[in-house]
Amino acid sequence: MNVIAKDARAEIDLSDPRGVRRAARTGHFTDHTSRAAPGFVQANLAILPKDYAEDFFRFCQRNPRPCPVLEVTEPGDPGFPTLAEDLDVRSDVPSYRVFRDGEYAGDVGDITELWRDDLVAFALGCALSVDLTLIEAGVPVRHVEQNSLGPMYITNIPTAPAGPFRGSLVVSMKPLTPANAIRAIQITSRFPRVHGAPVHMDRPDLIGIENVMIPDFGPERAQIEEGEIPVFWACGVTPQVVVREARPPLCITHTPGHMLVTDLRNATLAAF
Amino acid sequence: MNVIAKDARAEIDLSDPRGVRRAARTGHFTDHTSRAAPGFVQANLAILPKDYAEDFFRFCQRNPRPCPVLEVTEPGDPGFPTLAEDLDVRSDVPSYRVFRDGEYAGDVGDITELWRDDLVAFALGCALSVDLTLIEAGVPVRHVEQNSLGPMYITNIPTAPAGPFRGSLVVSMKPLTPANAIRAIQITSRFPRVHGAPVHMDRPDLIGIENVMIPDFGPERAQIEEGEIPVFWACGVTPQVVVREARPPLCITHTPGHMLVTDLRNATLAAF
Repeated sequence: MNVIAKDARAEIDLSDPRGVRRAARTGHFTDHTSRAAPGFVQANLAILPKDYAEDFFRFCQRNPRPCPVLEVTEPGDPGFPTLAEDLDVRSDVPSYRVFRDGEYAGDVGDITELWRDDLVAFALGCALSVDLTLIEAGVPVRHVEQNSLGPMYITNIPTAPAGPFRGSLVVSMKPLTPANAIRAIQITSRFPRVHGAPVHMDRPDLIGIENVMIPDFGPERAQIEEGEIPVFWACGVTPQVVVREARPPLCITHTPGHMLVTDLRNATLAAF
Repeated sequence: MNVIAKDARAEIDLSDPRGVRRAARTGHFTDHTSRAAPGFVQANLAILPKDYAEDFFRFCQRNPRPCPVLEVTEPGDPGFPTLAEDLDVRSDVPSYRVFRDGEYAGDVGDITELWRDDLVAFALGCALSVDLTLIEAGVPVRHVEQNSLGPMYITNIPTAPAGPFRGSLVVSMKPLTPANAIRAIQITSRFPRVHGAPVHMDRPDLIGIENVMIPDFGPERAQIEEGEIPVFWACGVTPQVVVREARPPLCITHTPGHMLVTDLRNATLAAF
């Protein structure tokens, strides 16, 4: 797949993860990554000062479904060698979102200027890896088909706290027929590093969702057809909400949809 | 199961994890835990000063097969509330082993005197949980039948380093018929938090084991019958060796076989 960058200065090969990162690094690719490097693992990014990172690492350990850690860097080290040898976390994400004291402070294409010796970066598993596996197995994923964000909800399920990090589990929802729901449970159980099996299905009220048609994040309205039941998975928005509410002096994430693209193939994340 | 403590001062109920911990806490139970609280998760214990603990946590994250973290404490906090509400890591293990600068410095029944505000405790998954599941599924585990330690070997497989923690993977070995080996791969794949699937089978030379009959740890000689193949799993001795070689000023573990007994049931560790 060859596309022309928005600034038309260079032709970018988005089929290859290294090409995606190089284009992001040089500022030639600043778009979302939903169609970049298909088949390769894309990760959620969270960067925190060391003092907060220690508690956040514990938070992830205690809440592996919403926060499956793929890798964590040494303080000050911008490399993620187990995800990709050439990866530089300061420049290789197409767009970064900066938060100061928990408040949005802008999106930037490069964080080299913001980098410090005490920053620690976390790469967390992202549902995209398993969504494509579901589709390949014949389980339709509506929001991917529609090239949109899926519906997400704040539940009444508490996370296990660690230091300043605490809050309710956020879930994503896929509407599925019972047969596809069963198949999806089997398939996603194989991917504990991409949120794993569902946490709930049917009866949204049992997990504190008042109106399943009105999500807290994602589209304005959910779409559930006759004969489908809502199936809920722990969602990577959980750590984003939890980190913001902890109000660290500095936190840098990816801009939603603009993920960290790695050299790992999705299939390598399967537990068996 | 009621047994009389060695000092005969009290009758101890070893069928219940809380009873085991209480007896360890009061000094009435100082024995190994292989027959204590059957069905409940027993964990490997590693306690390190905070500075070392940060790198060790990353080491575990990078090497989940030998080092599956069940829980990690806040610095100075002796509680493991997600493993058991009443658990006090300073007193509830039947016997502790103390290392100073990587050198053995004695076994003690209580570490309250050694406890400091900067100590962090790690509970790591232990093969015992899955050994019993194998036996229940009809896969014989010879060293458990013989009530002995299984054979363990230092391999030439490198672990992913973190800070001062680095070294070769140590594996345990079970001799199994091909049919039982296949079943064991299926069953252990369900337990990623207890070392997961095997890392190798057959051909010990391919992972740097010169003579499979002479283990590096465990019994003097291995026992492999006609028609059996050796199957190798990542082993919890790996972090013990790696931690000793990092020579932290203080490190406290359980005495081999004298595990941290939790309130979690083994079956809760199954990934699916």
